Amino acid sequence: MSEKRGPWQILSREQRYDNRWMTVTHHEVVTPTGQPGIYGTVHFKNIGIGILPVDAEGHTFLVGQYRFTLDGYSWEIPEGGGALDVDPLDSAARELREETGLAARRWQKLVDCDLSNSITDERVVGYLAWDLEQGIAAPDPTEDLRVKRVPLTEALRMVDAGEIRDALSVLTLRAAQLLLAQGRFPLPLPSER
Amino acid sequence: MSEKRGPWQILSREQRYDNRWMTVTHHEVVTPTGQPGIYGTVHFKNIGIGILPVDAEGHTFLVGQYRFTLDGYSWEIPEGGGALDVDPLDSAARELREETGLAARRWQKLVDCDLSNSITDERVVGYLAWDLEQGIAAPDPTEDLRVKRVPLTEALRMVDAGEIRDALSVLTLRAAQLLLAQGRFPLPLPSER
Repeated sequence: MSEKRGPWQILSREQRYDNRWMTVTHHEVVTPTGQPGIYGTVHFKNIGIGILPVDAEGHTFLVGQYRFTLDGYSWEIPEGGGALDVDPLDSAARELREETGLAARRWQKLVDCDLSNSITDERVVGYLAWDLEQGIAAPDPTEDLRVKRVPLTEALRMVDAGEIRDALSVLTLRAAQLLLAQGRFPLPLPSER
Repeated sequence: MSEKRGPWQILSREQRYDNRWMTVTHHEVVTPTGQPGIYGTVHFKNIGIGILPVDAEGHTFLVGQYRFTLDGYSWEIPEGGGALDVDPLDSAARELREETGLAARRWQKLVDCDLSNSITDERVVGYLAWDLEQGIAAPDPTEDLRVKRVPLTEALRMVDAGEIRDALSVLTLRAAQLLLAQGRFPLPLPSER
């Protein structure tokens, strides 16, 4: 085989690992400058979905869990994977309900990025969600999650202090903070000045 | 073997792929809730380093390249990989010089995140760089990069418009935009109002 991908030429391709969440493929290539080389890619089978819920008292909900990859505990906004062929907004509503029991009547997209494009094709989408109604959470039985309700200002402080390090959480919280600084936040925050 | 990693138990581990940039490992595990399962991880051998250089006229420099993973062209801030045992600031100075020929006398860290912690352990660090001196670029000979100088305001508009989608670029540009909105940007921008 010899196949073009933009200015890259692919001489051969071999799948090296596959599970429910990703596929790893090794390629022999000719680079855009004509050098022989290799390229290993990680294809993600889900879109990374993040939700920043904000209630009528200006509080949000953070999810804590031990992250296997980092061998450490991580506090994050509610997140999960959404199928590639499902509207990310539908996946967001489902994840928010599963992890926190919340339903939201209003949504605004804050983030739509390629997360790590030198090796992976992972896409992430982050939403602000408000006008909330509390129901009953139904977390994935394989997950051991803690949920805490904190003022949005406290979550923003945790980003500044490096206590929230997850990129999708930071992307979404920073985008919300920018709307606040610009006077464009779409709901009133009673606990703010 | 049976090894604990926080609340996870690792029953077996097998390396499935390895190259200069990453190692993929398959684990048989018991999850924190006691279910049997598998966990595939991607270990990154470099820290992702991003630099937002801003010159005395309030312009920055963007780097364009065709991204193999996405099969598409991407405009980003200057970025590259830094060895795990090297100070990210030293890697940032080297990457900035290689890709743009610029040297900076002043630096401020804007971003330090875990990029995709459900599958990878990739860390990214983003800097603002100013008080610049122009030298000669020395790009990696396997890379085919375009560099363009644009007002910082134009780069921020490209984020809003979805024309810059790379997460580390967005994290770094949004952090700079927030400093601007808060009146805390560390250098004057002559081209701004």
